[in-house]
Amino acid sequence: MRVAILAHEQFPGQAKTALGILRYADYDVAAVLDRDTAGDRVNDYVPDVQDAPIVESMDALADDDLDALIIGIAPIGGGLEESWRDDIRTALESGCDVISGLHHFLSEDEEFSTLADEHGCELQDVRKPPEDLTVSQGIADEVDAEVILTVGTDCSVGKMTVSMELARDARDAGYDAAIIPTGQTGIMIEGWGNPIDRVVSDFTAGAVEEMILEKGDEHDYLFVEGQGSIVHPAYSAVTCGILHGAMPDKLILCDEAGREAIHGYESVSLPPIQTYVDLYEDLAAPVSETETEIVAGALNTADLDDEAAREAVDAYADDLGAPAVDVIRQDTDEVLEALL
Amino acid sequence: MRVAILAHEQFPGQAKTALGILRYADYDVAAVLDRDTAGDRVNDYVPDVQDAPIVESMDALADDDLDALIIGIAPIGGGLEESWRDDIRTALESGCDVISGLHHFLSEDEEFSTLADEHGCELQDVRKPPEDLTVSQGIADEVDAEVILTVGTDCSVGKMTVSMELARDARDAGYDAAIIPTGQTGIMIEGWGNPIDRVVSDFTAGAVEEMILEKGDEHDYLFVEGQGSIVHPAYSAVTCGILHGAMPDKLILCDEAGREAIHGYESVSLPPIQTYVDLYEDLAAPVSETETEIVAGALNTADLDDEAAREAVDAYADDLGAPAVDVIRQDTDEVLEALL
Repeated sequence: MRVAILAHEQFPGQAKTALGILRYADYDVAAVLDRDTAGDRVNDYVPDVQDAPIVESMDALADDDLDALIIGIAPIGGGLEESWRDDIRTALESGCDVISGLHHFLSEDEEFSTLADEHGCELQDVRKPPEDLTVSQGIADEVDAEVILTVGTDCSVGKMTVSMELARDARDAGYDAAIIPTGQTGIMIEGWGNPIDRVVSDFTAGAVEEMILEKGDEHDYLFVEGQGSIVHPAYSAVTCGILHGAMPDKLILCDEAGREAIHGYESVSLPPIQTYVDLYEDLAAPVSETETEIVAGALNTADLDDEAAREAVDAYADDLGAPAVDVIRQDTDEVLEALL
Repeated sequence: MRVAILAHEQFPGQAKTALGILRYADYDVAAVLDRDTAGDRVNDYVPDVQDAPIVESMDALADDDLDALIIGIAPIGGGLEESWRDDIRTALESGCDVISGLHHFLSEDEEFSTLADEHGCELQDVRKPPEDLTVSQGIADEVDAEVILTVGTDCSVGKMTVSMELARDARDAGYDAAIIPTGQTGIMIEGWGNPIDRVVSDFTAGAVEEMILEKGDEHDYLFVEGQGSIVHPAYSAVTCGILHGAMPDKLILCDEAGREAIHGYESVSLPPIQTYVDLYEDLAAPVSETETEIVAGALNTADLDDEAAREAVDAYADDLGAPAVDVIRQDTDEVLEALL
């Protein structure tokens, strides 16, 4: 599938979804749309991902045979920026699908839905949960696959990245491993999945279980993309629902070096690592016959130099009493050995 | 407010909402509608609640000046039984509001919304969350009131009843205590509240916090109606979100005598009481500066005779290391003393 990724005025720093797609998705990326950096190339900013030209607008891609335009940024609040409307319109008029993770559903926008109908293309709102979700049956532990869930000390510590990197490395090593996507970027990369943070709260566990049951007998290992943190004042419900819905065999605890408080909730200090280990394991234990253990750690050291990063990962492994890794900078062999 | 309560073919055994309203609401109940028991009276079946005649249909109340018809039963799946349509139509035609906790929203039913418009009355779907909910700010612990949350070993062990009884007894003893309703029956009884099990999962804690902030400086004590259980395979997300959204000072652990497994999930055995105490307290601790402790227990002994009930409550108090009570059969003084 050949795609363009819209990231106006946000590439690369604030374009988490765009970067995730460039790094992990199987799409052929024709271009990134960013009017601020137009003329440059992706690799000028981010060296270790798929390269592509950066262009000003969809008009620059008129002769390209694109399958989809992906909205690769998410402003706070999830609204649609009016300045993106031209690009979306141009895409639809050239018969191109549009894939969006905005809270503002494109399929409910009258102009876009009319255009999509006229030109026979599709508006995919990945943040819109399917209508047929329901409560969990409590049977995710019955699937054949080993279920491995990333859990976090906080939001935005790298759970999605860790899931993606480890699943890829496992596949490279010959294992049959798949991703269970639970958030908008994961869903766009994989092309399917339930946006767990948008489902009805009673269906949180059920929406994860449904995906595990769908894929659990087709693969040997499922890496479930975790969300939030069990000590997050706003998002712990989602975290708890994923833990009980997925009934994982193994957990990877993800952290960011130097983080001391919950992002955006600075009065909530992160408790010691052992508190997280106990909370996640003790909360999982009563619900499933599977014994769920934290067997490895992943540390995001993006803000440190190489030596400080190595030291931080070693200290994290000591704290955890288990192997740990920065999945972007380091070799994941030791952690994979603990997981697979 | 003068109301009728629809409970066709389900009164009293399966009419939890109707009974909750008869027991706790401030409404003047003109009649219960139940075609099976029509001609009898409420007190023929349930002695300790507001009495009212049981009638066959709304036609029997044609001369009564009713304000609202309340749907007092909830079939599995939350659908609308077609056989109730006549009563709802009759109510609307006589200018009477209809209050419903069904998943099938009456306000989205074309016939009913047309009738309501014509006759100037309101369709209140209490299960429909308000549109303006958002994520928690993590500040419920800043209100003046002491926040007291009922938590459970499972669903349907009596959390709503315990909240209502204790708040009433506290008020009778001269304390300024209010209820924070989180489920459909609580919302109908109190006439306001957010249906936490139906909100977007990301807003679970936020929807509770919003209510605490609204009422927290108006009263000395808030009794928050809990939902689900932290070890429930399907509903733990809601339980966790309420715990972190409410940031309670004190918890009451509710259990039912003789229950051994999660209702409807018989493979999930209830863990020992001490496991619940540790889970609820350890999960609350990192998120708020408030020290949250389980300071009392409530045991539902409806299936036991008087002596067995007393013994069960005593054993439960011993297990818990805290005062315990069956709020329906016993005096709540000792438990209130631990709470207030």
